[in-house]
Amino acid sequence: MKKGIANYGVGENFQGFLLVKKVQKGIARNNNEFLTLTLGDKSGDIESKVWDNVEQALAYYPVESIVEVQGVITEFQGKKQLNSNFMRAVTEDEHVTVADLLQSAPVSGNDLLEKVYEVINTDIQNDKIKAITKDVVQKFEGDFKVYPAASKNHHAYVSGLAYHTVGMLRIAESFCSIYPELNKDLLFAGVILHDVGKIREYERIVNTEYSFEGKLLGHISMISEEIGMSAQSLGIIGEEVTLLQHLVLSHHGKLEWGSPVQPIIMEAEILHLIDMVDAKMDTLRTALRDVQPGSFTERLYSMGNRSFYKPSI
Amino acid sequence: MKKGIANYGVGENFQGFLLVKKVQKGIARNNNEFLTLTLGDKSGDIESKVWDNVEQALAYYPVESIVEVQGVITEFQGKKQLNSNFMRAVTEDEHVTVADLLQSAPVSGNDLLEKVYEVINTDIQNDKIKAITKDVVQKFEGDFKVYPAASKNHHAYVSGLAYHTVGMLRIAESFCSIYPELNKDLLFAGVILHDVGKIREYERIVNTEYSFEGKLLGHISMISEEIGMSAQSLGIIGEEVTLLQHLVLSHHGKLEWGSPVQPIIMEAEILHLIDMVDAKMDTLRTALRDVQPGSFTERLYSMGNRSFYKPSI
Amino acid sequence: MKKGIANYGVGENFQGFLLVKKVQKGIARNNNEFLTLTLGDKSGDIESKVWDNVEQALAYYPVESIVEVQGVITEFQGKKQLNSNFMRAVTEDEHVTVADLLQSAPVSGNDLLEKVYEVINTDIQNDKIKAITKDVVQKFEGDFKVYPAASKNHHAYVSGLAYHTVGMLRIAESFCSIYPELNKDLLFAGVILHDVGKIREYERIVNTEYSFEGKLLGHISMISEEIGMSAQSLGIIGEEVTLLQHLVLSHHGKLEWGSPVQPIIMEAEILHLIDMVDAKMDTLRTALRDVQPGSFTERLYSMGNRSFYKPSI
Amino acid sequence: MKKGIANYGVGENFQGFLLVKKVQKGIARNNNEFLTLTLGDKSGDIESKVWDNVEQALAYYPVESIVEVQGVITEFQGKKQLNSNFMRAVTEDEHVTVADLLQSAPVSGNDLLEKVYEVINTDIQNDKIKAITKDVVQKFEGDFKVYPAASKNHHAYVSGLAYHTVGMLRIAESFCSIYPELNKDLLFAGVILHDVGKIREYERIVNTEYSFEGKLLGHISMISEEIGMSAQSLGIIGEEVTLLQHLVLSHHGKLEWGSPVQPIIMEAEILHLIDMVDAKMDTLRTALRDVQPGSFTERLYSMGNRSFYKPSI
Amino acid sequence: MKKGIANYGVGENFQGFLLVKKVQKGIARNNNEFLTLTLGDKSGDIESKVWDNVEQALAYYPVESIVEVQGVITEFQGKKQLNSNFMRAVTEDEHVTVADLLQSAPVSGNDLLEKVYEVINTDIQNDKIKAITKDVVQKFEGDFKVYPAASKNHHAYVSGLAYHTVGMLRIAESFCSIYPELNKDLLFAGVILHDVGKIREYERIVNTEYSFEGKLLGHISMISEEIGMSAQSLGIIGEEVTLLQHLVLSHHGKLEWGSPVQPIIMEAEILHLIDMVDAKMDTLRTALRDVQPGSFTERLYSMGNRSFYKPSI
Amino acid sequence: MKKGIANYGVGENFQGFLLVKKVQKGIARNNNEFLTLTLGDKSGDIESKVWDNVEQALAYYPVESIVEVQGVITEFQGKKQLNSNFMRAVTEDEHVTVADLLQSAPVSGNDLLEKVYEVINTDIQNDKIKAITKDVVQKFEGDFKVYPAASKNHHAYVSGLAYHTVGMLRIAESFCSIYPELNKDLLFAGVILHDVGKIREYERIVNTEYSFEGKLLGHISMISEEIGMSAQSLGIIGEEVTLLQHLVLSHHGKLEWGSPVQPIIMEAEILHLIDMVDAKMDTLRTALRDVQPGSFTERLYSMGNRSFYKPSI
Repeated sequence: MKKGIANYGVGENFQGFLLVKKVQKGIARNNNEFLTLTLGDKSGDIESKVWDNVEQALAYYPVESIVEVQGVITEFQGKKQLNSNFMRAVTEDEHVTVADLLQSAPVSGNDLLEKVYEVINTDIQNDKIKAITKDVVQKFEGDFKVYPAASKNHHAYVSGLAYHTVGMLRIAESFCSIYPELNKDLLFAGVILHDVGKIREYERIVNTEYSFEGKLLGHISMISEEIGMSAQSLGIIGEEVTLLQHLVLSHHGKLEWGSPVQPIIMEAEILHLIDMVDAKMDTLRTALRDVQPGSFTERLYSMGNRSFYKPSI
Repeated sequence: MKKGIANYGVGENFQGFLLVKKVQKGIARNNNEFLTLTLGDKSGDIESKVWDNVEQALAYYPVESIVEVQGVITEFQGKKQLNSNFMRAVTEDEHVTVADLLQSAPVSGNDLLEKVYEVINTDIQNDKIKAITKDVVQKFEGDFKVYPAASKNHHAYVSGLAYHTVGMLRIAESFCSIYPELNKDLLFAGVILHDVGKIREYERIVNTEYSFEGKLLGHISMISEEIGMSAQSLGIIGEEVTLLQHLVLSHHGKLEWGSPVQPIIMEAEILHLIDMVDAKMDTLRTALRDVQPGSFTERLYSMGNRSFYKPSI
Repeated sequence: MKKGIANYGVGENFQGFLLVKKVQKGIARNNNEFLTLTLGDKSGDIESKVWDNVEQALAYYPVESIVEVQGVITEFQGKKQLNSNFMRAVTEDEHVTVADLLQSAPVSGNDLLEKVYEVINTDIQNDKIKAITKDVVQKFEGDFKVYPAASKNHHAYVSGLAYHTVGMLRIAESFCSIYPELNKDLLFAGVILHDVGKIREYERIVNTEYSFEGKLLGHISMISEEIGMSAQSLGIIGEEVTLLQHLVLSHHGKLEWGSPVQPIIMEAEILHLIDMVDAKMDTLRTALRDVQPGSFTERLYSMGNRSFYKPSI
Repeated sequence: MKKGIANYGVGENFQGFLLVKKVQKGIARNNNEFLTLTLGDKSGDIESKVWDNVEQALAYYPVESIVEVQGVITEFQGKKQLNSNFMRAVTEDEHVTVADLLQSAPVSGNDLLEKVYEVINTDIQNDKIKAITKDVVQKFEGDFKVYPAASKNHHAYVSGLAYHTVGMLRIAESFCSIYPELNKDLLFAGVILHDVGKIREYERIVNTEYSFEGKLLGHISMISEEIGMSAQSLGIIGEEVTLLQHLVLSHHGKLEWGSPVQPIIMEAEILHLIDMVDAKMDTLRTALRDVQPGSFTERLYSMGNRSFYKPSI
Repeated sequence: MKKGIANYGVGENFQGFLLVKKVQKGIARNNNEFLTLTLGDKSGDIESKVWDNVEQALAYYPVESIVEVQGVITEFQGKKQLNSNFMRAVTEDEHVTVADLLQSAPVSGNDLLEKVYEVINTDIQNDKIKAITKDVVQKFEGDFKVYPAASKNHHAYVSGLAYHTVGMLRIAESFCSIYPELNKDLLFAGVILHDVGKIREYERIVNTEYSFEGKLLGHISMISEEIGMSAQSLGIIGEEVTLLQHLVLSHHGKLEWGSPVQPIIMEAEILHLIDMVDAKMDTLRTALRDVQPGSFTERLYSMGNRSFYKPSI
Repeated sequence: MKKGIANYGVGENFQGFLLVKKVQKGIARNNNEFLTLTLGDKSGDIESKVWDNVEQALAYYPVESIVEVQGVITEFQGKKQLNSNFMRAVTEDEHVTVADLLQSAPVSGNDLLEKVYEVINTDIQNDKIKAITKDVVQKFEGDFKVYPAASKNHHAYVSGLAYHTVGMLRIAESFCSIYPELNKDLLFAGVILHDVGKIREYERIVNTEYSFEGKLLGHISMISEEIGMSAQSLGIIGEEVTLLQHLVLSHHGKLEWGSPVQPIIMEAEILHLIDMVDAKMDTLRTALRDVQPGSFTERLYSMGNRSFYKPSI
């Protein structure tokens, strides 16, 4: 496989396709305008300056467009830069897609969605729970396949949300067999629905930003309302609706972590723990991936600023 | 005015009407069953034991019924008791009502509701905000007139919710004149809607208990959903809906106080502060009412366990 | 199955075997001495007073002895009491054992220990880890089979420690298959060793009290030292020893929860989470066992004072 | 109105009067000394370097002097700079004053002071409270008219202290009419006195720094002592003195916010809340002033790092 | 030495002098009034009921009077009571004093005061510090000799304040020799003055209660003001005054522990630590005094609820 | 004494010996490699760039080697740099040692160690405590003489550990005379042993880094295990071993500060306080050393970010 942009050292020449992830205008000491493009592929990001023909560049290289670049890696104030000699916009018929240039889950969004539907159709017995869960997933399935589960930290990549959901389903299945007291229908539906609100919380997939609704309401309230409205439109009433809403409302586990109520059914408590386990495991496996045995990771902000060790045994 | 039950001292004889607020069965050392009735009027509560004809008493004196009692006040383990010589169920045609025997707001529920409608009709200009606010209040107006604003602490009396709302409206009006930057429509609608969810959160008015929904979802999520559903049924879309939901979701001010999002519009921040001011003032005026100038109140749990002083100047 | 002592109501007659769990002397208003015995079986505990022949009773009914009692259930200050008409010490040849009268894990201690050895022998590949783990378990295996995992809260019953360990092993196995990055040897050994120090931390099985060492050193430091000493006596050196000590030292997850270091290997982080999951699940299944669907448990102190709901669906 | 220095973009030419707010010496790579002047007007601050005749510049442009400058706005390390071609000290007879170049309250200090005296003379009835309040205000009236209420965050501008005080008086008046239980004399005096200690806490008005006394004693202790000494010199004794001292000592509301005692009179509790309301409202209206409807402010440190939204309705 | 009241067991007969520390009226089940007297000597307190001649007893046995009692120790609801057969008021000419019946410091108040003056006169060199310190001590010397240092916890006995002060002076002397950087004058004056405000904070010595001023202002603000007023009356100005005030204001070490400013001179930081050391040591030596080697104390509330062990070596 | 490197101003010429403390490679804008050396002497550190002959420099100037340098002090981005004209490696026969160029305790490591042995031999009476303490100190005495007590903050210099220990012994002696209830043997042994684990926690003396063991186990667990193993190898059993382990395990005072158990013997509580006193005093005397009377220190991170004042009296 071709080496990604993040793996190029200072002094090396790069030639290849990159995704335009951010575009910022600046003004140089000589009072001329210039652009700072953030370009990236699956391996990571790099900045590149455009000093000439700034207006033209703005038009040719919008965010989420793809460019072909040739240049050398340099360093400025301790950070690598791509000093480009050549840059051109890639056209659609060149068959390079955004998905080719963003980090993605190791399983395709379609496969993940299929697994989710399989669980809904096969494992969830209660008709009301099955109907509401399916209705909500169907409403969002287009985005559900591709959205990340977070803007940074865990599962922050294409299809991260679906991958996180399916990872949690596997834990849920194992817990249901270890603790037969658990109500499978509630736990599985809770896992599937718990983060669907993130689709309304984030603006888009590239360079994830919180949406207006995301900032003012939060994904937790939004998915609870989605469940309520789905039940209303399907004509479903009963304890099931309240229980599903409780599961999603309480899944952050504590008020100070953003849940307006604490879990007070067993399945809600365990849903919170499963979410925590899968989020932490994704963070750790990602952080440890490129670390040599016998070495430590960078400090991981989302893990309480700890630096983790990769055993050499 | 006749002296209330709470003002009778040990040794005094009481004769009058009391509301049955709680009924509990117990078993005496001699293995016989007995009842502990919690009886009350506007002044407070007292316990009374029924040692004989227990089954009959259970049938005659259900919760929320009214009794006429004659007896003497005694003390058992440091607590006053009403040692009744005579007790009988009061019939409807005797014109003693539950409202006569519960603490109530100093203004009638009808007057308070009228004031709320006046604000909606006169002061709120934005049509979408006006329509949603009116729709939600109308749906709950029967209970809105009589519910308390809390199960204990502040405004824990008949029509407390409406009284709290109208008190907050007066502060909101004054703030809008002091700080003209505030959006009146948003602030007034926020005040009116913020605690309507409590009607679904509490079981009933006498001896307030959390409802099933109240425990699993909380009043904050429920009123946000009510707003969303009202907007949907009225066909209203736009920023107004999100802003109204944000106002109610954030009105507890902090995540650890049960809001899933913090206030991020000026009106939401000030709504939270107005709520705090009116709640604290009601707690303090109630606690200080019966305290002599130059003396201290009991420790007030909801005020951080402080004991307040009533100046003698 | 015969009804346990905790299931008798006031007024019912009890006749059967009970374990003496605590014996306390008191002095009555008439200045005579009396005894308060705490008697129990698998279902729970009850107090019983001995008013006569106190010295004789002290000699006949020591803690951990078994008595046969006949009496009636009464209530004193809101608490049930066993008013005994007859009580006698049970002799060994009557084949009633302490284990018959204490709550126990649903699986026998021997079976649980066997499962632990099977994991050590079969699943742990690294020779140093296998040797140390086996050495420590062998040293404590007599007590390991019967000790509880806690003095109250979760797994507070005979063989609770071994049952908790085996429950955690099941989760660990499932996590190793979901997250293949995990080092099985470290995780399994961590699970097996993490709470062995509790054997030195508690005085004994009935009416668990902290030992002198338990209070001054805590089970976490003690098991870490046991691992260090085992390694020394086996002549084992290397990263494995430090990693095993890190796993047990960090398994409470946070400094404020009693771990002198936070987890900084992936297996230590997940060990902490598995411990938390199994402890919470045991607490919840125990609390929900006797609750009717559609009802709430008592407030559970170890679950942040929450009262849990048992769904009726 | 002429555009302020903060509104000039990179590349624009500036010509006008600026206040010298800070002067710092540095040493360039060529080992020559240079100066960094912080210059400002009502719109904000900008830095300007002086590379030549450093000693002369130090003498001509002291802190709090006014200069006339001509130059171009450039950018260095992401920050705007004023690259001056011409700079000269402005003489007194040019009628440009410090107040012309600093942000000020929208009402004049004299008008604000007058309002305060009006409240003292007209609204405060209790003679002891009236006398002490007037005495303390008179002692500090010169500074009271011009000082800011804080070194940053809320009311950090000329006459900010008096403007904050008068804003709080308006709220206090409205609360006294809504909650007639409040003692007007205590509340009004508390509002007027609560922050007077800030005059001793800050060094001066331009580029506010904490004074020696401010750092070692804090404004809360200092104003309490001022009240005590005023009472002593006026020969006033009685509960009023203690109550006034309590009001100022407790007005931060909590020990961790710097009050040595918590409020334990109703007026002290409400004084704290009024202070909080007016401080937050000033912070928010300032932050939102230059934000477009439909946009968010910067993160506001003093508002818990939240970024606020300005509704577009 | 005669055995104290607290050392009598249930069933034993007591005869001797006791101090009346509290008097409370109650009403018995038969509707008659009775009194609960709290009686004590140096060893501790016991309650005694007066069932007859209540009015007479109220007149004869006021708080702080001394009685001679004869009776038997009984137990009621787990608490020892003194069942008196005989009680009479002791007259002044019987030469039993309050001080004979209250716990006192092991050194006399006069000796302690002398030591304090010796330090002021001999060890403090700076004239301003010496003058202010002496002035404040002289103003309060009558109470300084006898007041406790706290209402419960550490040094809660007659002359506890002076004993605490002298204990801290001994530590301060030793620290000044170990850390010669410390300014002796400031540290010694800080130790002597730091708790003098408690004399105004507590109502009286027997059954210590907070005074009105104590509740509204706290001892920390009061002693700071005393220093300021002393300096004013002595015509002393200069950094010394501010430093002395800083020492007392900051001696609780943290805002949340009641200091309005944190220590920011070395002597203030060490003053806080010396205070903490002496308070904890007094608490521990008191708690451990009557504990057998090899045993644990009760849980000590002021030591974070820990139970301390007395080694048997 | 010759002026240290940290006392040279920009523009001054430096000539002398410096210790190589860190070596980092970088890449310049022209794509050439360069080195950043951190050089230091007792006065502090400075960076120096090597632009030519990078490979040779890497070989000649390894970390912990000594160089002779001649150059001028310049400033780059606000930080002083040493612009060297000449640099050469110093050979061993030039008699300049690492110790000459690092900050050290004011007393030699040998003298400090001697004092520690004197206390062990003379002051500790209990044979078991004496034997274990001596055994552990002997095992580590080589490093004990030279190690710092911390990587930054207090006693972060050569022999800082021994100097801290001896400083604490002086306080302990004084406390034992002020509070005769203290067990001298336990307290002195606790002081001597409490931080010995830091020798295993840090990698080395220059540019202190945590060791692998230090990160995974922490110095507190390691020294507790050392005591346990020493006791085992000396054949010592008894309460003394547990008490010594308790002293070291609990000496951070609180769980959240890294102690797995809280102090529950008087000597452990006081050990924690002595440690805190000596650490804070060392931090403060170091910070205040170079501050002028009447001025403030920088903000001190380890003192809660406070800036301390040095009185001018």
